[in-house]
Formats: sequence, structure tokens, C-alpha cells
Amino acid sequence: MTRLYSFWRSLATHRVRIALALKGVVPDEIVVVDLTTGDQHGDAYDAVNPMHALPAFVDGGGPPLVQSLAVIEYLDETRPDPPLLPPDPRGRARVRSLALMVAADSHPLMVPRVREYLEHELGVPEPARTAWCRHWIATALAALERRLSTEPETGRFCHGDTVSLADICLVSQVAGAGFFGVDTAPYPTVRRIAEACSAIEAFASAHPLKQPGAPAAV
Amino acid sequence: MTRLYSFWRSLATHRVRIALALKGVVPDEIVVVDLTTGDQHGDAYDAVNPMHALPAFVDGGGPPLVQSLAVIEYLDETRPDPPLLPPDPRGRARVRSLALMVAADSHPLMVPRVREYLEHELGVPEPARTAWCRHWIATALAALERRLSTEPETGRFCHGDTVSLADICLVSQVAGAGFFGVDTAPYPTVRRIAEACSAIEAFASAHPLKQPGAPAAV
Repeated sequence: MTRLYSFWRSLATHRVRIALALKGVVPDEIVVVDLTTGDQHGDAYDAVNPMHALPAFVDGGGPPLVQSLAVIEYLDETRPDPPLLPPDPRGRARVRSLALMVAADSHPLMVPRVREYLEHELGVPEPARTAWCRHWIATALAALERRLSTEPETGRFCHGDTVSLADICLVSQVAGAGFFGVDTAPYPTVRRIAEACSAIEAFASAHPLKQPGAPAAV
Repeated sequence: MTRLYSFWRSLATHRVRIALALKGVVPDEIVVVDLTTGDQHGDAYDAVNPMHALPAFVDGGGPPLVQSLAVIEYLDETRPDPPLLPPDPRGRARVRSLALMVAADSHPLMVPRVREYLEHELGVPEPARTAWCRHWIATALAALERRLSTEPETGRFCHGDTVSLADICLVSQVAGAGFFGVDTAPYPTVRRIAEACSAIEAFASAHPLKQPGAPAAV
């Protein structure tokens, strides 16, 4: 039995959905946790993840697994085909570092709890809150572009011609750029790789706008 | 040849220093990048890490490795003794998820570039900037406490009685609490584990206040 706690707009869940699809894992159950109505703060989800963040993934009888990168590494270790990390330590370090530029340096700055703190504790009005999100999205996109356009390991995808954890994170970052209205034209390598990924069914089917509850467009 | 780009106050560098010490790796060269004078934005460090973040680690002839968790996983793969992750995938997922609660959900919210944006772009005055840092430090400490005090895998350290990546991150979080004046008394399990770690020479010697350029106290 597998169960995914999910919300269409959650970029961390987007990453795990892509990994599941690449591994051919179709969750037996999907529990929608609506971030727009505060479901993540309710008692039901508090028992699943005390950080009140999505996603959480249940695999068999054990406790819920949390934190998107930890879940994806777990999937890669328990369902090794296709691998989401290269075989050599230096390549793995490169892929993980690209992934963390998104999942650690950028995405945590724009999650709901941070936007709420900006609004309610610091009194930051719109459009400054959206500008904040755009700034950190663009900062990471620029750094990704710089690395991907200059490092020789870049290929059709972030690391050679095989899809990896780095591509999963890059695609979630580009989806976030779409949500917040960040133009990706200044980042042609990022855009090229995102387009190559979107041609793969596992990436296409995992897109936020194809999930239950999603609007037709953002 | 090994080289670490470091600053005493950088919590991400603190994590890598602990891992290096646990592995018995003494860097051949330590390059101090002074975050208080903006060294990280200079041309010299820009060529090392375009994200302008510490640390970076050079191991032999390859390019600099960046992102603390990616560097530590690399060290664990290239210097497997002692291991910093448990052998089973579920245990590894637990340790990585605890680590990411610090390194992704909390620490990126208080790095210099974020504090600078709060000050210069949003006009957030003191003491609201320090309150921001304290809030996110305490939020993660509370979530760590909740998990560590209730999950059966917790032992003398975060995961059983063996030091892991989770302990490295927990100790860096407690050091950050010290920098920003967050009382750790409400988090007795976190504090107990941090104290157990500080009795280990690799942790003690890696402490921020024992590094070149550090003040006597914060």
C-alpha cells in the first residue's frame, strides 16, 4: 500500500510525483491536503507531518516519509530502476547540489508559512510579497543557468543525457516561475532542459495543473 | 589536496567541518571567505561558487563541491568510515528528513542574503529582522523536538546510538540558536543530543567559536 499526501500547487509534492512516475509507482491512495484552506495545520495532517508541510509518502506499514529530497532518495534506493542519481560520487554530488539550489536555497523562501509571516508579522503588502517570491525564484534560476551553461557535465538534461534528481528539481522550479509570473527567457539552458523533460510522460503527467483541484491555468 | 572555503559563522560550513572531522579529513588548505565584509560576492569566490554561498570543498583535481548536504553525502560515499547514514533505506530517509528540516526548511531563511533583502528591499528594521531569524530557528527546533521525543528510532543520538547526518544538522541548528539568542530549554531532547555530540572531539573542534576569526563569544 502506498499513499501520497498531495496538493496540486505544492512544488515539493510535484517533485515526488515526478519521481514516482519515473519509477512507475502509482500511489494506491492520494490524500489531498488543501494548502489554501489550511488543511496542513489541522489535526489530521499534524499527525502525519508535524512540520505541516507537503508531501508525505506512506510505503507499506512504516511511518510517513517526509521531505521531498529524502523521499526521492528513498524511492531511488528501494526502486533503483531507472536510477535518479549517477553512479559516481562526484556526479552524485553535482546532481544533489543542483537539486539543493532549488529545494533548499530557493523553494523554502516562498512556501505558505513564509508568505504568511511576511504578511501578518512583518506587514509586507502586495506586490512586495510577490516580488520577494519572484526574486528568490529568479536568483536560483540565474545560478542554475550559470552552472548548467558552463559546466561540461550538462547534456540533454542537467547531468548528461539521463534524467536525474536535478531535472526533477529544475522542472519544479520552472513550474514555480510560472505560478509567480517569472519570465524564464533569460535562462535558455534551464528552459531547454525543462522542455526536454516535459516531453517525457512521467514529467507531463505530474504537472501541477494536471492534478485534482487545479485550475485550468495560473 | 583538499581545500575548504570557510567562515567561522557559516552554519553550512559548520556542518561540513563536523563531517570532515568525523571522517578524519584535515583540509590541506582553509580559505577564509569573510561573510561580514562581502567576500562571498567578490570575483575570486564567484568563480568557486556562483551562488555566493559557503562552503565549497575541493577534493583533488575536480571542480569545487558545493551545498553542505551534497558535500557530506560525497564525503560519506568516498570515505565510508564511519558511516553518516544508516544502512537501511527507511533509516536513511529518516536521517535525511531530519537533516533537511534544518538545512532546507530553516537555515536558508536566515542566511546573509535573506537578511539583507529584508533590510534593504523590504525595509524591515531591527528587532524585527532578528525576530524573523529566531522564529524560523525555533520553528525547526520545535518540530525536531516533537519528532525526536516521540519517534522510537531516537537513541543517544538522533537515530539510535550512532552519530549521523541528522546530528550534524541538529548541532548546527543549536549553534544558530546561540548566535540569535534562541533559548533551547523548551527542546530538551534536542539539547540532550547536542550535548552528547559536543562531548565528541570531532564536534567540539568544529564549533564556530573555535575557528579562525571568531570572537570569544556571541
